[in-house]
Amino acid sequence: MRTDLCERLGIDVPIVGFSPSEHVVAAISRAGGLGVLGCVRFNDADELDRVLTWLDTELDGRPYGVDIVMPGRVPTEGTPADLGRLIPDGHREFVERTLLRLGVPPLGVDESRRAGVLGWLHSVARTHVEVALTHGPRLIANALGPPPPDVIAQAKSHGLVVAALAGRADHARSHLAGGVDIVVAQGYEAGGHTGEIGSMVLVPEVVDAVGPDVPVLAAGGIGSGRQIAAALALGARGVWMGSVWLGTAEYQSTPALRDALLQAGSSDTVRTRIYTGKPARLLRNRWTSAWEDPEAPKTLPMPLQNLLVSPAHDRLMESGDPSVVPMPVGQIVGRMNAVRPVAEVMSELVTEADETLARLAKL
Amino acid sequence: MRTDLCERLGIDVPIVGFSPSEHVVAAISRAGGLGVLGCVRFNDADELDRVLTWLDTELDGRPYGVDIVMPGRVPTEGTPADLGRLIPDGHREFVERTLLRLGVPPLGVDESRRAGVLGWLHSVARTHVEVALTHGPRLIANALGPPPPDVIAQAKSHGLVVAALAGRADHARSHLAGGVDIVVAQGYEAGGHTGEIGSMVLVPEVVDAVGPDVPVLAAGGIGSGRQIAAALALGARGVWMGSVWLGTAEYQSTPALRDALLQAGSSDTVRTRIYTGKPARLLRNRWTSAWEDPEAPKTLPMPLQNLLVSPAHDRLMESGDPSVVPMPVGQIVGRMNAVRPVAEVMSELVTEADETLARLAKL
Repeated sequence: MRTDLCERLGIDVPIVGFSPSEHVVAAISRAGGLGVLGCVRFNDADELDRVLTWLDTELDGRPYGVDIVMPGRVPTEGTPADLGRLIPDGHREFVERTLLRLGVPPLGVDESRRAGVLGWLHSVARTHVEVALTHGPRLIANALGPPPPDVIAQAKSHGLVVAALAGRADHARSHLAGGVDIVVAQGYEAGGHTGEIGSMVLVPEVVDAVGPDVPVLAAGGIGSGRQIAAALALGARGVWMGSVWLGTAEYQSTPALRDALLQAGSSDTVRTRIYTGKPARLLRNRWTSAWEDPEAPKTLPMPLQNLLVSPAHDRLMESGDPSVVPMPVGQIVGRMNAVRPVAEVMSELVTEADETLARLAKL
Repeated sequence: MRTDLCERLGIDVPIVGFSPSEHVVAAISRAGGLGVLGCVRFNDADELDRVLTWLDTELDGRPYGVDIVMPGRVPTEGTPADLGRLIPDGHREFVERTLLRLGVPPLGVDESRRAGVLGWLHSVARTHVEVALTHGPRLIANALGPPPPDVIAQAKSHGLVVAALAGRADHARSHLAGGVDIVVAQGYEAGGHTGEIGSMVLVPEVVDAVGPDVPVLAAGGIGSGRQIAAALALGARGVWMGSVWLGTAEYQSTPALRDALLQAGSSDTVRTRIYTGKPARLLRNRWTSAWEDPEAPKTLPMPLQNLLVSPAHDRLMESGDPSVVPMPVGQIVGRMNAVRPVAEVMSELVTEADETLARLAKL
């Protein structure tokens, strides 16, 4: 199973794998795919610098990518302290009350010094770009539409391929107009920020919208070789997978998160604004249900909602309770039933995709 | 493109097409697929009898099917007048106020004698079964899970294949246990009653749940040959398509409905309980938006909600205004951009599916 995407990115199989873990990213690229490092978790540019140095060494010329979260328009900006003043007291009280009701203890002294995730801030995302360009990524992707024009220009002058996620055909067309090279058509099934159109409908719609010269990757609902073959049938030149790597041995998970992922079925996710202020698919659990209560406050716009819930996320994660972990994941979570090394997952994906193509050839 | 479903149903191509129109059904079967007649619109058993007599003659031995709406559990039953008393005045007032606000005129004297759709009533659905069994359908399907056990037994004693729709793998397993022969895995993208799991995730999940001996049809988001090929890649033995026929020449549409369907994009649908009390995907428009208003009442359970809105549906349809038509349709509506004969649509589906399989064979 090869497509022209393989030549374009210098990879063996048209599987692009997104993960916040450099260990997962390295393993995907070593297995012949393209690992893409999610950068939103890096509050400190020096830490990203160290991780990319490690990846450059580890992969020794094999390609990888970086994914940076840059909203199309520059949103409310400021220091966390400034922004914090924009969060209504009622919201903070609801979060505190909910954590109490769910039996989630406060953090210890060391743990409570965390700053929350700042990567949603535009200024922080820009430092990610600056750092990434001093390293060797082959691709830069933006999870929130097209990167700003100067970032695209800068990335291209460094020889990078620019990718952007799109949940609608008109977004894909405007990405192209902005200079994006590869469109990731991300369907409703996907984990994290996601739109309302299912992959079965969205992928061919985006393929037709961008025309034959622009590679489209299918994202959302891809977790097996049959689904990769289906994506290729729909006209995608490859797939973008995220959720499936959360269940791999290389992903440094907590026991609670691992249990929650292994137990969840495909119905156990929910698309909600509670994570960042924009609709994102998460594991459905006692934490997400609390926000569906008629007495829950309305979610805040990006980046305030994430600043509000970030300290709660730390507490929910540290609680060790699988029924409250705050985790973006796609509907494919129903297929994650065992912890396996990335290499084994990749090998199975390729084998099943090849078998599926062989089966289809006989019809 | 042939699968073992073709032998099983005596058809040339594994395309099953659902329509409330006998003209569409006949054209699908004549083109080598299996047309399935939606029976919910027949308040009068004699009318269904006449239509099936026409189909038997018209198709002269070519197979067709019938789709009957039978809830798994017998719901609130009674005459429309009895049931009408269960509808709160506030709901009736909201509907009346909304129609006024949307500029929808009352019906003329002749038109206002309509009884609304009674096919959602269990007793009416049973008469549909009785009538259908005196004719020659090859397949009987139930849109709301497995048919009642005695209906399955009766249908099988008449040599019919029994199909049931499922939006989750556990539902598919219980259908099998109830004696269903074919499972229609219907994804989130679908029009009408639909679940929350996208086709990309649902189809292989159902295929794995029912095992290799049970044919699965993919429904939801199928409107092109690429999507048929993708469904086959996911392990389906064929497809079940509904929305796409609404845009054919054989479907006797109103100009307003036709305009609304041709103009709508894939984002212009909404999954809501306002049509029947169960979640169903409809065209998104001024009518569906009115029910999202904070002052709109909560929807009623089946069958009360449909009794409430049926007279309004008649008025909305008669108004001639494309921005208010109450119409179940899937996300594939974005692909419906011209009115064409069924035979042309079928031919294009098969050609594109074959081309897709040939393209995949080269990877």
